[in-house]
Amino acid sequence: MRIVVLAGGIGGARFLTGVRATGAEVTAIVNVGDDVTLHGLRICPDLDSVMYTLGGGADAGRGWGRAGESWVVKEELAAYGAEPAWFGLGDKDVATHLVRTRMLDAGYPLSAVTEALCARWQPGIRLLPATDDRMETHVVVGDPDRAIHFQEWWIRYRAKLPARRFVFVGAEGAKPAPGVLDALAEADVVLVAPSNPVVSIAPILAVAPLREALVSGPGKVVGVSPIIGGAPVRGMADRCLRAVDVPCTAAGVGGLYGARSAGGILDGWLVDPTDAGTAVDGVRVATCPLLMSDETATVAMVRAALELA
Amino acid sequence: MRIVVLAGGIGGARFLTGVRATGAEVTAIVNVGDDVTLHGLRICPDLDSVMYTLGGGADAGRGWGRAGESWVVKEELAAYGAEPAWFGLGDKDVATHLVRTRMLDAGYPLSAVTEALCARWQPGIRLLPATDDRMETHVVVGDPDRAIHFQEWWIRYRAKLPARRFVFVGAEGAKPAPGVLDALAEADVVLVAPSNPVVSIAPILAVAPLREALVSGPGKVVGVSPIIGGAPVRGMADRCLRAVDVPCTAAGVGGLYGARSAGGILDGWLVDPTDAGTAVDGVRVATCPLLMSDETATVAMVRAALELA
Repeated sequence: MRIVVLAGGIGGARFLTGVRATGAEVTAIVNVGDDVTLHGLRICPDLDSVMYTLGGGADAGRGWGRAGESWVVKEELAAYGAEPAWFGLGDKDVATHLVRTRMLDAGYPLSAVTEALCARWQPGIRLLPATDDRMETHVVVGDPDRAIHFQEWWIRYRAKLPARRFVFVGAEGAKPAPGVLDALAEADVVLVAPSNPVVSIAPILAVAPLREALVSGPGKVVGVSPIIGGAPVRGMADRCLRAVDVPCTAAGVGGLYGARSAGGILDGWLVDPTDAGTAVDGVRVATCPLLMSDETATVAMVRAALELA
Repeated sequence: MRIVVLAGGIGGARFLTGVRATGAEVTAIVNVGDDVTLHGLRICPDLDSVMYTLGGGADAGRGWGRAGESWVVKEELAAYGAEPAWFGLGDKDVATHLVRTRMLDAGYPLSAVTEALCARWQPGIRLLPATDDRMETHVVVGDPDRAIHFQEWWIRYRAKLPARRFVFVGAEGAKPAPGVLDALAEADVVLVAPSNPVVSIAPILAVAPLREALVSGPGKVVGVSPIIGGAPVRGMADRCLRAVDVPCTAAGVGGLYGARSAGGILDGWLVDPTDAGTAVDGVRVATCPLLMSDETATVAMVRAALELA
């Protein structure tokens, strides 16, 4: 079986450990909207979260970055007064970014760089950025309007600065990375991971030919709700949903994605038993406990999603 | 009093602590031939050695790099198979290189970058690269000839690969960094630090207008021998001298520099008592213990050099 997963960072990474456990041929199409250049380093937080998690190098407790991380470079940069100082740049991470930046500077596309990095991490799935083109999520805040990078909004301001809207800079004209369209055309099932719908999944779908291939593809599309009982499982999806006027509920997010039969992307929508009764027009809804507390629970979620498909 | 010092890395840095202690207005003109770009980072070992040493951040025991250094980035780069793995890239150092690389990429010249880094380190002297132009020392080795970067020869091969000759790539046409010519024109004394004559001092002098300004300048030029009793005090100057067919003696190096009155650069030459009797045509020779065992000994050396001037 061939499974394609649309995924953001941490939630997507954990979900993917369950998908990998099915033994299927798995392709993850990962958000690049969080990507940012800081201190001259090209940083891809979602690709790295997936790569480190599936490669056994992630810090499970903190939920992002590397296990056993240290912060010498970050402290030294701050001692030079080098901005920004708010980004959590770990020493182990710096090496990843150095290799990536050097390869990008040499002309390799991000998909090739990701493949090269995965030669070390052996994630056991195929890891593709949504696009090799530079695409970044910016957030319009303040009065008068000003746009800041998503990372600044998310990390520096802890998503507390009221967001007017999200802009996927570069999405217009962005081409899907090599392999993305083929994977979607050959997928038996497409799963939408329980990632942030507004800033993880939406930027993937903002790559127009990718969305078209998803909608017109042969595989059933099943989404997994990132909202349980009216609250995000982790992260600050509530603040993102508020900015786009979508209720922070399983039904709200299901409606945001919409039915494939009605211009949306979903055939099925998996929600937590807490949200039993959730209805989304034109979408088949099923329930399953959605807390990814361990790999067993995650595998059960994935099985339920595949059954729904 | 205005003192200009021509200096390489560690030996130059230690010597400069003694020069600074005189209370004079000190300008160090530092070798950039060792500079190298590795992993996308621009690394200036001699400028950093001087900056860290005078700023109180150097590892005195190891003799290079930062005190309390860690090596996480280096280990991680090796885990990715990123070459070269032989360079001692410390985590604290990485931050310095990131700031420098980012500023250079933004168009600032190396002299301005060095000034910016020194805003943190407060070395108490003016630190100038010999040139802002890219100039690197390469070493011709092997049969047939091939040229490798000085750092590869020095660190990877511990200078054991027989060197045919040293090439200062980019020296032709290199302009002295801003401030260098003025400093030489206004110097009361110019001191040549006991640095490696072949790969630290020679690349500085390879910047032709700099050498001309030194030779035609008003200040007496006094060199301090890096050779005591036929051996380099530290480092591998013997292997460098062999490559240019100069005896590894205080007289040999004095003769290599030569008398200012005869097309060389020296008015005076300070040697260790072990080498009493050393004669260099046209150069006044004096003796003083030249082991920089502590700052008191180093200050005594500097005083002796100034008296000779």
